[in-house]
Amino acid sequence: MRTTTIKELAKVELKNPVLVEGLPGLGMVGRIAIRYLIKQLKAKKLARLYSPHFPYYVLVNKKGSVRLLHGEFFFWKNEAGENDFIFFTGDNQAQTIEGQYEVANRILDFSEKNNVKTVVTIGGYRKEVEKKPGVVAVSTSLSLLDEALKAKAVPSSAGNPIVGTAGLLLGLAKFRKIDAICLLGETRGYLPDPKAAKSVIEVLRKMLKVKVDLSGLDKEIAKSKEIVGRMQEIERRREKYAQKMRRVEEERITYIS
Amino acid sequence: MRTTTIKELAKVELKNPVLVEGLPGLGMVGRIAIRYLIKQLKAKKLARLYSPHFPYYVLVNKKGSVRLLHGEFFFWKNEAGENDFIFFTGDNQAQTIEGQYEVANRILDFSEKNNVKTVVTIGGYRKEVEKKPGVVAVSTSLSLLDEALKAKAVPSSAGNPIVGTAGLLLGLAKFRKIDAICLLGETRGYLPDPKAAKSVIEVLRKMLKVKVDLSGLDKEIAKSKEIVGRMQEIERRREKYAQKMRRVEEERITYIS
Amino acid sequence: MRTTTIKELAKVELKNPVLVEGLPGLGMVGRIAIRYLIKQLKAKKLARLYSPHFPYYVLVNKKGSVRLLHGEFFFWKNEAGENDFIFFTGDNQAQTIEGQYEVANRILDFSEKNNVKTVVTIGGYRKEVEKKPGVVAVSTSLSLLDEALKAKAVPSSAGNPIVGTAGLLLGLAKFRKIDAICLLGETRGYLPDPKAAKSVIEVLRKMLKVKVDLSGLDKEIAKSKEIVGRMQEIERRREKYAQKMRRVEEERITYIS
Amino acid sequence: MRTTTIKELAKVELKNPVLVEGLPGLGMVGRIAIRYLIKQLKAKKLARLYSPHFPYYVLVNKKGSVRLLHGEFFFWKNEAGENDFIFFTGDNQAQTIEGQYEVANRILDFSEKNNVKTVVTIGGYRKEVEKKPGVVAVSTSLSLLDEALKAKAVPSSAGNPIVGTAGLLLGLAKFRKIDAICLLGETRGYLPDPKAAKSVIEVLRKMLKVKVDLSGLDKEIAKSKEIVGRMQEIERRREKYAQKMRRVEEERITYIS
Repeated sequence: MRTTTIKELAKVELKNPVLVEGLPGLGMVGRIAIRYLIKQLKAKKLARLYSPHFPYYVLVNKKGSVRLLHGEFFFWKNEAGENDFIFFTGDNQAQTIEGQYEVANRILDFSEKNNVKTVVTIGGYRKEVEKKPGVVAVSTSLSLLDEALKAKAVPSSAGNPIVGTAGLLLGLAKFRKIDAICLLGETRGYLPDPKAAKSVIEVLRKMLKVKVDLSGLDKEIAKSKEIVGRMQEIERRREKYAQKMRRVEEERITYIS
Repeated sequence: MRTTTIKELAKVELKNPVLVEGLPGLGMVGRIAIRYLIKQLKAKKLARLYSPHFPYYVLVNKKGSVRLLHGEFFFWKNEAGENDFIFFTGDNQAQTIEGQYEVANRILDFSEKNNVKTVVTIGGYRKEVEKKPGVVAVSTSLSLLDEALKAKAVPSSAGNPIVGTAGLLLGLAKFRKIDAICLLGETRGYLPDPKAAKSVIEVLRKMLKVKVDLSGLDKEIAKSKEIVGRMQEIERRREKYAQKMRRVEEERITYIS
Repeated sequence: MRTTTIKELAKVELKNPVLVEGLPGLGMVGRIAIRYLIKQLKAKKLARLYSPHFPYYVLVNKKGSVRLLHGEFFFWKNEAGENDFIFFTGDNQAQTIEGQYEVANRILDFSEKNNVKTVVTIGGYRKEVEKKPGVVAVSTSLSLLDEALKAKAVPSSAGNPIVGTAGLLLGLAKFRKIDAICLLGETRGYLPDPKAAKSVIEVLRKMLKVKVDLSGLDKEIAKSKEIVGRMQEIERRREKYAQKMRRVEEERITYIS
Repeated sequence: MRTTTIKELAKVELKNPVLVEGLPGLGMVGRIAIRYLIKQLKAKKLARLYSPHFPYYVLVNKKGSVRLLHGEFFFWKNEAGENDFIFFTGDNQAQTIEGQYEVANRILDFSEKNNVKTVVTIGGYRKEVEKKPGVVAVSTSLSLLDEALKAKAVPSSAGNPIVGTAGLLLGLAKFRKIDAICLLGETRGYLPDPKAAKSVIEVLRKMLKVKVDLSGLDKEIAKSKEIVGRMQEIERRREKYAQKMRRVEEERITYIS
């Protein structure tokens, strides 16, 4: 394992597969969404991606063994619909600029090999969300974007950057005749945000015509809500204190003058 | 796209083409100048340069799609003169030392392939400009430098560094029998500075005998002037405050003694 | 020496050799343990590993000469037991992500070439140890882990990261049909910690059925104890002071409100 | 120029040439010494070394042109002695770990090609020098070290690191059957230190039996002395102030207790 390497774990024939990607990032939206989908749909392991551009540590697993950081591809045979699915998530994003381009290209190589024609990437979009988080969509394909908007996503304003693998996959897909769309769940981003992940999956299941029960996510949301409440209280106090300090400082300046 | 790659978008025969380059940097002088020239002269797209040494994000464009960061070559057929033009600008400079050398070399590869014999690079030169910004010129060719000085540029003092692509293109051009000149518009550098860009284009159009109307830039200058005025006011106050703080501090030290 | 290079210093036939690795890291546990074993067992030099991923300085040695930073392999013929040993230690870990993967892979290349089937790596595990430091074990092999637990090591909880060469060797060994175990001595980690190294060797000698006298380490422990005592006293005072400062600060905030 | 490249500027037959290297570093000792030797001995240009591992800027030179950062080899035909000389100095050291190893290797490649059997590197050694700076010597060859000690250099204590090209050249020379010695002039290191450079050249000219007049350096020393005097005065005051602040702080702590 000296360069980015993909190890296949299963041989399957997939029917017009769609790749859905979500790695750790803002609010962990992508990773939470993909992990939930894998669990709900009982998707099976397809392949692993290793890379020397991931951080140089290993993780202890439940059996007392360790493993390299990796990304994982899962597949799900969608008997009821037109498209099977490949899901991709992992422990980390690549740590260097060149590594980011390299890993994104390898994900697309593997997708092409599996005849993927559509890629969906999931991430977070920083916003001070008060109620239900919205979903921002950008796409290399007008018709895909259209489907997302019909499923209640909103378009992004021009000039926004989309950082990391979720963005690069779209940028690089254009060179490969693969259509790609990125769905960004609005999130304050400080903490893992299952609420934003839920909003994304709601858009996704309409777009891709897949039935996914979302009640499992509601438990995670309840848990995280409590934590968020406490964080917001702390922030409110900090802001109040900062305002006072500014006032005191301003008075001091006036005095010095 | 695993290494720096140039995608050609048009096939044209160019007559003794001159490459004029300007990337984001100090005061955004290079990028503002090139974008203005492209717009004024209605230059057409020639090629795009992609690189894994650019930052790892993509940008949302107006149609709700995204694109990788890139550099772009444009061409302009100069019916009235002896030289056609290739313009180059982009979103970003390369992010690593090795990437900077790599991207500059690729720009020169493409220039050589198009029979470019002269390269002009544009950037900013940090100076507390009060009135009309001057233009500093350095060149690998005495005759090119001479033309710039006749067009009211001033020579640079020895030992000055020219950072980034605008500088490396000159340094690397020497190995390829390409003459190159760098025109640096004086700028305070904190904000996009269309005034500095205007000064550079004034020198450029004299040197290269190209007619370019500059009234379009005057609008941008008017807009930026207001912002700069406010920034200077803030700075003046900060300086005044800092002086007072130093005085207070000095007294405190005296007291401790 | 442009890439990571291994120079062989001796040709030997080794009997089912086990590689035992320990590089500088938390509490210097790995390096102290390996150096002690080499000295006690009178292990002989086998090979050196050089790498452009090590820091770019050289070290002055006792004869007034200098040498590049390196890692060193030693061998010990274990007449009484079933396994000969190869020890590996060095001056430094590799300094970049890609360098870490590269060096770990080269260590395994060399191990495979010498028919190594078992790798033991040694490191430190951050913990506020009060009495005898425990030893945490993780392994790619259940039977190896079992032997460590019998020798009084404790298993690691899932999710812990093991950073650097000690971890990567385990992660990468899995691709090569080499069994590997990592033994981490509990240490506060601020200072070289021979006590943690002693705990690790105690587990190791039981597991690997090797006789090693540990009285030599006790001298080092006595020396370090005194230093640690002084450090703890300083820390206690700092903490006390910090608490007071926080109290003062809180009062000030109350006052401002 | 995509990798480190050496351009030859002259073809000469050199008689048992010795390479003497000094790049910018602590107190600029190496660079000052080499530049002085080149000027005094009227050494001629032999070759230039360019590298994408140098910083990505170019320097304006006296003629209003620019040049890439580079290293330069000069040669001097020593009619009176047994060894001709190659001098190497440059603008900068390489900026990355891998770049440092790469550049040092290329310098040795060029040396081998020119039948260099002995390399001398020059640098600074941080020390609070009061009077005449001493010269610390380390060498891969006992006989070379001996000659340096006879010329009044002192040996280094074991364990000292020698950072950068001056150190790596020694470490890497060992793999090429080239003898190498490093002479480090003691310097406080904050400012260019011609006095330390003078001490090094005094050792060097004894060792290598070369006549070099040192009166030119005395002028530089006189100039720098004045600056150093002022710097020391400022430092003395800062230290005095810091002591007072500590006393005040200690009292405050006592008060809080």
